[in-house]
Amino acid sequence: MSISPDKKSKDRVVILGAGFGGLAAAQKLKSADVEVVVIDQRNHHTFQPLLYQVASAGLDVGDVCYATRGIFHDQPNARAMQGRMIGLDIPQKRVELANGAAVHYDFLVLALGAVTADYGVPGVAKYGFGLKSGADAQRLRSHIVAQFEIAESSPTKERVAQTTIVVAGGGPTGVEMAGGFSELIDHVFRYDYPDIDVDQARVILVEGADRLLPSFRPRQSRKAQRKLERMGVEVLLSTQVSAVTGGGVVLDSGEEIETNTLVWAAGVKANPLLDSLGFATGRGGRAVVDEFLQVEGHDDIYIIGDLAATQLGDGSLAPQVAPVAIQGGQYVAARIKQQVLAGKQDRSASKKLAKLGAFAYKDKGSMATIGRNFAVVELPIGPAITGFIGWLAWLLLHLVMLMGFRNRIRVLITWAHNYLTYDRGNRVVIDSGEPS
Amino acid sequence: MSISPDKKSKDRVVILGAGFGGLAAAQKLKSADVEVVVIDQRNHHTFQPLLYQVASAGLDVGDVCYATRGIFHDQPNARAMQGRMIGLDIPQKRVELANGAAVHYDFLVLALGAVTADYGVPGVAKYGFGLKSGADAQRLRSHIVAQFEIAESSPTKERVAQTTIVVAGGGPTGVEMAGGFSELIDHVFRYDYPDIDVDQARVILVEGADRLLPSFRPRQSRKAQRKLERMGVEVLLSTQVSAVTGGGVVLDSGEEIETNTLVWAAGVKANPLLDSLGFATGRGGRAVVDEFLQVEGHDDIYIIGDLAATQLGDGSLAPQVAPVAIQGGQYVAARIKQQVLAGKQDRSASKKLAKLGAFAYKDKGSMATIGRNFAVVELPIGPAITGFIGWLAWLLLHLVMLMGFRNRIRVLITWAHNYLTYDRGNRVVIDSGEPS
Repeated sequence: MSISPDKKSKDRVVILGAGFGGLAAAQKLKSADVEVVVIDQRNHHTFQPLLYQVASAGLDVGDVCYATRGIFHDQPNARAMQGRMIGLDIPQKRVELANGAAVHYDFLVLALGAVTADYGVPGVAKYGFGLKSGADAQRLRSHIVAQFEIAESSPTKERVAQTTIVVAGGGPTGVEMAGGFSELIDHVFRYDYPDIDVDQARVILVEGADRLLPSFRPRQSRKAQRKLERMGVEVLLSTQVSAVTGGGVVLDSGEEIETNTLVWAAGVKANPLLDSLGFATGRGGRAVVDEFLQVEGHDDIYIIGDLAATQLGDGSLAPQVAPVAIQGGQYVAARIKQQVLAGKQDRSASKKLAKLGAFAYKDKGSMATIGRNFAVVELPIGPAITGFIGWLAWLLLHLVMLMGFRNRIRVLITWAHNYLTYDRGNRVVIDSGEPS
Repeated sequence: MSISPDKKSKDRVVILGAGFGGLAAAQKLKSADVEVVVIDQRNHHTFQPLLYQVASAGLDVGDVCYATRGIFHDQPNARAMQGRMIGLDIPQKRVELANGAAVHYDFLVLALGAVTADYGVPGVAKYGFGLKSGADAQRLRSHIVAQFEIAESSPTKERVAQTTIVVAGGGPTGVEMAGGFSELIDHVFRYDYPDIDVDQARVILVEGADRLLPSFRPRQSRKAQRKLERMGVEVLLSTQVSAVTGGGVVLDSGEEIETNTLVWAAGVKANPLLDSLGFATGRGGRAVVDEFLQVEGHDDIYIIGDLAATQLGDGSLAPQVAPVAIQGGQYVAARIKQQVLAGKQDRSASKKLAKLGAFAYKDKGSMATIGRNFAVVELPIGPAITGFIGWLAWLLLHLVMLMGFRNRIRVLITWAHNYLTYDRGNRVVIDSGEPS
């Protein structure tokens, strides 16, 4: 086996995590004189921005998850493997994996991302549905489809909880999901379940701040809220979920809502794998890094993306979003490339390294999409774009970002079909029935 | 709820099973003056002929499984529901479901299909992989991908079992799977797992008869075998698997093969749900039906497809294949339509019923595909077609049969991509990793 625990002739960059940050770093190292190994607990990359579409039956899991090994077919110096880190031996420069293997590194990039954070709200972990992985999305979709199936044969009393969906968290993820579920019920379930009065079904979006999309401008928040309400979503602002039970949620206002489906999009925290590594952490458990995204005292260990407490120019913390991870990944790859050359006595490398300077995140804007033809798009300068034009921009950007010709075309076809027919074909629940 | 247990004004046809037979019957009843209810244990129809492609990572589950409720959006007199039959009250004309509900019928069509039959071979049920459902196919695919992932980090000794696949059953299903796995390993795993010598991986096809595809002509059997062998598949004829263990199989020759992947495509039997109903059964547990596909003494109960011991013109038993189910479904629908009219004193109905006559299956041929550009096609008359032309015919037919514009286009795009790039994108295993 060539991923040996010991140092080989060429410097090896080990990247932990095959999300946006990890893959951006790996791909940027294509021209560097290194061996790149990307290790992820799963065998695939997950295109998280579109997970809400899997959850609301607009896309299939296979449209947003990509076998990581396949991604590197065309990059000879990089390879992916599946593994879970259980320890880090810094003096020996080794990553220890759950399967017993150890992988040597010359440079280490930690890009382990974030996981759902329940902020200690009772019942979330047990009864709630997160949305950070393909499995999460598929599980949530199957649950919702199954709830409506059961509801058709259920007494009206039980039907309420079965046909009520509560989404906690009014950021982009929650907003997008609420819109998606609303459309699924209105345009598809209405015809799938003729015996259910879908106008009695409820989608409720709960947000603790006084407006949706708190990271956007207030005007976009209002537009998003109006759009959702026109679609039939109930928006509760300045409200939080204080407890979740098997059959409902309790709000901090005291109100109780009967529901079998509580979707938790209210927050994330840095991957707790970080805890065991002994690095300094800040808010949300994110790792403290210097202006070069390095761990204090270790110029060979970088932390990027959702896992890192990346500082912006104004001293604030970078949001945990894809562009921060991607730019961070590209930045550390550029640094590592020069560090390797400098290690080989290449004098211009030190100069280039100095020229790279500190990491400077360039905010290129934010987007949130609501339903089938509406999005709010904020750019760093100029007015925001809302509505159908915004949605087209969103569509284009995501198609460009999607990996792989096949996936891109398939997603485009699916979206075209869904758009023209209002259908959402991905309502198949495969884990039912007797074993055959 | 409108699916009441009692008789309503319009005659109700209850169809148990949403496979090829059940759906053909339901769709043929579109113009009949009846209410149609299709009940299946799952919420979707499974396009079984393409399951082997899901298993060998050529297609996604969502490409071959279709939400049944969606299928009937355009048929006002038909609806689908999910449910498992646990009993049949013939005097009361009611189907009893596991969820406690009871559904009244005026006409009943049993189209419950077949399940994997292990013929009592020890270990098959516990260690083997069947291929009768989307869940089966996905489970098998995930297992194979995971085996190769683990193999890359395993000592050579363990690698043998991890990279050996044994397929029991040399009929079309087994042949198609062996070809699919061989391609997956040769064209994809070779690049996914650079540390595995895939030329050491084995795909072994075991068939009890003295030739593959025993239902085809001997010449096509030989061509299929040669094609598989050129692809690197090892074909063992006149051989059966006599036992399966956790780490291997034992053949009736005494030979033992180390493998963690035994795929069982050696036989099916009628759905055992039939046993509890008290109908006469024949070989393979299939229900005895008269020449009108009715149960003896009950002109309102029909049994079709794999579940029925359908007799052909020459007295032999019809094979358990899709066209038999489809034609049977269409036939009983035509009968029921006239029976309903006759019940309403429509005199021409009795004449039409008589004119329909007995069920006469029209064999339109058989196909089996091997790899990416080869198929054997036998038509009722004329020479067989083999090779690339046969494969084109196979492609066309399956695209036509596939339901739904979206699925058809998506499958076509996927096939085009796979064909041009040799890639098989569906290697994502979603049930791994820590909960997020």
